[in-house]
Amino acid sequence: MNMGLIWRMRYEDEENLTPSWGNMLHLHGSGLYAQKNSRIQEEEEEEEEAHASKKTHILTTTLSSAAPDGLESVVINLDHGDPTMYEEFWKQKGEETTVVTSSWQHISYFSDVNNVCWFLEPGLVSAITALHRTVGNAVTEGRHIVVGTGSSQLYQAALYALSPVDGPGPMNVVSAAPFYSSYPLMTDYLKSELHKWAGDAYKFNKEEPYIELVTSPNNPDGFTRQDVVKGDKGILIHDLAYYWPQYTPILSPADYDIMLFTVSKSTGHAGSRIGWAVVKDREIAKKMTTFIEINTIGVSKESQIRAAKILQAVSDGCIHHNRKEAETNFFDYSYKLMAERWKRIREAVNKTTLFSLPSFPQETCSFSGRTFGQLPAFAWLKCEGEIDDCESFLRRHKVITRSGKHFGASMKYVRVSMLSRESEFKLLTERLPAIKT
Amino acid sequence: MNMGLIWRMRYEDEENLTPSWGNMLHLHGSGLYAQKNSRIQEEEEEEEEAHASKKTHILTTTLSSAAPDGLESVVINLDHGDPTMYEEFWKQKGEETTVVTSSWQHISYFSDVNNVCWFLEPGLVSAITALHRTVGNAVTEGRHIVVGTGSSQLYQAALYALSPVDGPGPMNVVSAAPFYSSYPLMTDYLKSELHKWAGDAYKFNKEEPYIELVTSPNNPDGFTRQDVVKGDKGILIHDLAYYWPQYTPILSPADYDIMLFTVSKSTGHAGSRIGWAVVKDREIAKKMTTFIEINTIGVSKESQIRAAKILQAVSDGCIHHNRKEAETNFFDYSYKLMAERWKRIREAVNKTTLFSLPSFPQETCSFSGRTFGQLPAFAWLKCEGEIDDCESFLRRHKVITRSGKHFGASMKYVRVSMLSRESEFKLLTERLPAIKT
Repeated sequence: MNMGLIWRMRYEDEENLTPSWGNMLHLHGSGLYAQKNSRIQEEEEEEEEAHASKKTHILTTTLSSAAPDGLESVVINLDHGDPTMYEEFWKQKGEETTVVTSSWQHISYFSDVNNVCWFLEPGLVSAITALHRTVGNAVTEGRHIVVGTGSSQLYQAALYALSPVDGPGPMNVVSAAPFYSSYPLMTDYLKSELHKWAGDAYKFNKEEPYIELVTSPNNPDGFTRQDVVKGDKGILIHDLAYYWPQYTPILSPADYDIMLFTVSKSTGHAGSRIGWAVVKDREIAKKMTTFIEINTIGVSKESQIRAAKILQAVSDGCIHHNRKEAETNFFDYSYKLMAERWKRIREAVNKTTLFSLPSFPQETCSFSGRTFGQLPAFAWLKCEGEIDDCESFLRRHKVITRSGKHFGASMKYVRVSMLSRESEFKLLTERLPAIKT
Repeated sequence: MNMGLIWRMRYEDEENLTPSWGNMLHLHGSGLYAQKNSRIQEEEEEEEEAHASKKTHILTTTLSSAAPDGLESVVINLDHGDPTMYEEFWKQKGEETTVVTSSWQHISYFSDVNNVCWFLEPGLVSAITALHRTVGNAVTEGRHIVVGTGSSQLYQAALYALSPVDGPGPMNVVSAAPFYSSYPLMTDYLKSELHKWAGDAYKFNKEEPYIELVTSPNNPDGFTRQDVVKGDKGILIHDLAYYWPQYTPILSPADYDIMLFTVSKSTGHAGSRIGWAVVKDREIAKKMTTFIEINTIGVSKESQIRAAKILQAVSDGCIHHNRKEAETNFFDYSYKLMAERWKRIREAVNKTTLFSLPSFPQETCSFSGRTFGQLPAFAWLKCEGEIDDCESFLRRHKVITRSGKHFGASMKYVRVSMLSRESEFKLLTERLPAIKT
């Protein structure tokens, strides 16, 4: 078993704290690990965590499986959705996805002054539209593409574009609970007068303009979503980060006003920080572009060039090869892996009465022709019976997850990443059935 | 003469407008070309520009010098500081600065969980600290490095880190006029309750906390700067984007609380969107990291890896070779080019009484041993006599610059980029002396 990349806890006293644990604490106390609605809360939690750390634990990496106290002491961190699962697929790929960049390239701020989004590389536009056409998951004809530093930046760009600068008050931003834990923080962290987080869309009943985030399949729970407020003053943003055939049956090309996608979840290249928006209205695309211009004066050319090559390779791999060939067809490979992982985690959960997982209806995917239920990137795990704080309960068993409270839901739920490396996932499926109250 | 990359205007009617001009208008109407303090202003100006375009002009590229109406019709766009001047240096560089990236690399969000800035590539830290040590322009020992998507993002991260979340009102943000035209926009575009643009530091006299931006050498005028408010409630951010030996004599290693740098201006790689902050206080570095985490969940790994390789090559080139060898020593090459361009633009301006340029005192550079006056990345050009709107005046002569009004200064001034390709710079030095009122 490859233990090379597993995080482990060891007992030490605070004086010997390694910087890594200090920073894992730092991360846990901020956006990526567990989002909060205000910096005050965040700092309070950091303090709490620092205090907790006094007791016992340090996180370190080990290159050997010779854990003195066995695998039970290994901490499995599945709090965030780091898509390292995909590394193995890309390791078998050769030159066709390798990018070579000379130092004189990409000097300029500009990519294409003919485009509304002037910092968008033309090769990325081609690759994005080709991939959507191949997969059949989004309409791009006649639409504007806006590239962002991940879809987080595009979410903020969309809020900026949709919130009137001279409105009577900040625009309400809502999403149906359980909603992605970063939405409240990204909406409110700058205390903007343009927009404010207004919570669960099911509870929104003001006669005011609003923006509704529709995440489908949903993060954290994986269900297919529609807008729920259905007021006449609403504007919709569709976050379709997980609308890819390894996670859900593709039913038809999505055709909404603003649709957000990201390479982090489609191909797994989270480190590249590349997202894209497919936008119907030219003025909105322009305002989103303006936001990114002010925020970061465009988006890394290196990442765009590489994302273009990878997305094009994925697209070509679907078209030119038999869809059953896992080595060439990324979505075939990733679908099979997700299906296998979901089978394994359901088997693990079925061995105990402590936990449960959601069930999904089966549908036929227009891309693969397969009939299956959702295979979400996260498991929305529920603690049954008398366990009210599922995150703390699992943490005691050295499984780090994100509590339902961060998603506007009950603390009986946690979100567990399904995209980790095999070694961590295997430990999870072994540990869950072994846990006793 | 290489006309391959020169923008030209041709006469056409509006029905035949190419998308390119539409977007050059768009750009001009937004941040990168001419920053405004509100989106309303911006949209108004876009409309004005669109109206103006009806009259006559379309911007296109040409690959030939066979301009039917001669070089006088060529538009020279020097509004923004696109550092394409450096392309020629990098073209003579070979494999030592070429980056090869396989598709399985940089999948994860994380670069180094041991670092306060967990998304910062360790190789970039080494290259940054090596370069500052070699050049002697900043103290990095015992400091925290935070990487950003350009220094714009770091500026916003610093404001977020320095503005208390529970203050009595938004934190005042000031800078001595003439100040970088993007500061007001970056401070106010989200109408944040955390901070607000409070204008010219020379005029700030409130007994309230404030953040003062000190840009040295200054954008737009190139002068060395110190803080000017000198109140007891002030916090300083030093923007040292131009504190490199091609622009200014290096006098001593800068040693301020928060210092901002960027590859856009140091090596010319604007398309990479890589900036870095050197930060004394760990808590401020953590809060800046949190901002970037929420804003974009980190910074492109591809750009970081490439910036690391290029900065390391620049550093190595200074150490291992005779500093007189332009082919290997980037700062020797770029210093000579800037010195030559300043000589040429001063000669051009001296041939006419319509314009003037600032003078700079000579000092000895601790890096190169040379004695020289500032060689700024922008020329702060003044229209003499009765010309009150220098930008409009030059625009009529097809030279696009940025008016002093965007920098909190008189409209008799414009900022002119000195970092364009040679073809455009040559046209500028020919056209300026030929202009008659």
